[in-house]
Amino acid sequence: MNVKEYLASSSNQIVLSHFDADDQSLAPEGKKESKKELKSLRKQLVKLQQVLYAESKHKVLIILQAMDSGGKDGTIRAIFDGVNPQGVKVASFKVPTPLENAHDYLWRIHQKVPANGEIVIFNRSQYEDVLVVRVHELDPEKVWKKRYEEINKFERMLANEGTTILKFFLFISKEEQKKRFIERLENPEKQWKFNPGDIEERKYWDAYMEAYQDVIDKTSKPYAPWYVIPANHNWYRDLVISHIIVKQLKSLKMDYPEPVENIHQYLDPLQNS
Amino acid sequence: MNVKEYLASSSNQIVLSHFDADDQSLAPEGKKESKKELKSLRKQLVKLQQVLYAESKHKVLIILQAMDSGGKDGTIRAIFDGVNPQGVKVASFKVPTPLENAHDYLWRIHQKVPANGEIVIFNRSQYEDVLVVRVHELDPEKVWKKRYEEINKFERMLANEGTTILKFFLFISKEEQKKRFIERLENPEKQWKFNPGDIEERKYWDAYMEAYQDVIDKTSKPYAPWYVIPANHNWYRDLVISHIIVKQLKSLKMDYPEPVENIHQYLDPLQNS
Repeated sequence: MNVKEYLASSSNQIVLSHFDADDQSLAPEGKKESKKELKSLRKQLVKLQQVLYAESKHKVLIILQAMDSGGKDGTIRAIFDGVNPQGVKVASFKVPTPLENAHDYLWRIHQKVPANGEIVIFNRSQYEDVLVVRVHELDPEKVWKKRYEEINKFERMLANEGTTILKFFLFISKEEQKKRFIERLENPEKQWKFNPGDIEERKYWDAYMEAYQDVIDKTSKPYAPWYVIPANHNWYRDLVISHIIVKQLKSLKMDYPEPVENIHQYLDPLQNS
Repeated sequence: MNVKEYLASSSNQIVLSHFDADDQSLAPEGKKESKKELKSLRKQLVKLQQVLYAESKHKVLIILQAMDSGGKDGTIRAIFDGVNPQGVKVASFKVPTPLENAHDYLWRIHQKVPANGEIVIFNRSQYEDVLVVRVHELDPEKVWKKRYEEINKFERMLANEGTTILKFFLFISKEEQKKRFIERLENPEKQWKFNPGDIEERKYWDAYMEAYQDVIDKTSKPYAPWYVIPANHNWYRDLVISHIIVKQLKSLKMDYPEPVENIHQYLDPLQNS
């Protein structure tokens, strides 16, 4: 699977207004076949996480951003189903608390970054401070404008210190969002996810797209790339993201720690204990 | 499944020196049949966690304690496989850091207790401060002796504030530990879990059993019960623990939040947006 077209880079500018949220071009075999593929990727991920944890040398940070109903929760469930919960942490960044707001915007973020051997998934992230903050003018432009570069510097430092960073923007169309909101309202088991504020927020769709475009243009770096994922179809979204994560983890060439030397020094006394 | 015999209470004192780590009496149908049962329990747990998260009213704290190789990691994987990682957190308490040690022993514990809608699993816990600390005399007796009552008071407060607490001591025999250590040493994919210090620690087996006996006698309360789980057989351990957790969650009689009133006030404007 060649996911390069979804990777934002200096040689591949992704223009959101022309991006197809329905795209399924990398899975010509279709939804049914892809389920097997996803299952296989998930199994690989389970194994890779085990080595990552055992080796305890690399840190992995996965950032998920999306518009409301874009599928962040579903992605986490679909991809990390079966991965040892002990080595995977999810950090959700909601509306900042007064204590968080009394600090710089990276303060609460920094506390949640992965340690050696850990995978941490950010459900929303530092990018909210150049998204919702920009769209609703919660801070003046001269303040949020500086943040792109600050975030780059911050992520550069994390990468220098051994963190693998992958950033995913789950891209759904405005029409798809409408469908999902209606489904939430009409399905009793999903209604609790409905928030009247989401409909208000929907009015700012274009402003958000502009803000996301800037994020992707300014903060996709080789050490912390942005992937824009066609996300109208959940199965396709899960397949592509799993593929990218598995490929990246494989490239770390991890291995179990060196074998214990002379195991008999331990085995022999054990036998008599 | 009547698990009462594993529940330590004033009417059922569990004497560890007579407890059978090989017991399988509650699963007369045997290992093979029980796999189906475990699968069904896991599915129920996935659903229960979803409601717990949606309702966001209850907090659930699961404490796992065991001797080295007792199966804490395996239990977490087996039982929470497939449960949404977003609503389940694992907190592992290792040897305290200097910063942790500079505080009271409940300081680091308190930071990790569950919020509304969350399940938190403690891999080791505050009980280490009356186990390893007692066995190795890291604090004088007059200090750790007070802790049983302090822990009871602490857990009572958590329960008063809406926390469901379940505590499991995964009980393996000394012989089984030997088997597991040997397996770790001989299996290249498991060797990284081997720690030479574990063999040293094994010499204190009897002192640990005494310390565990006191923990169970002094801190099993209706609001925070201890279950002693026969854990020589992983499948049995997983089955019994899943059963207890599912039963407890069901008893909370959780439900999705109240339906949104007059959904048309939202649906109608959505249709035209």
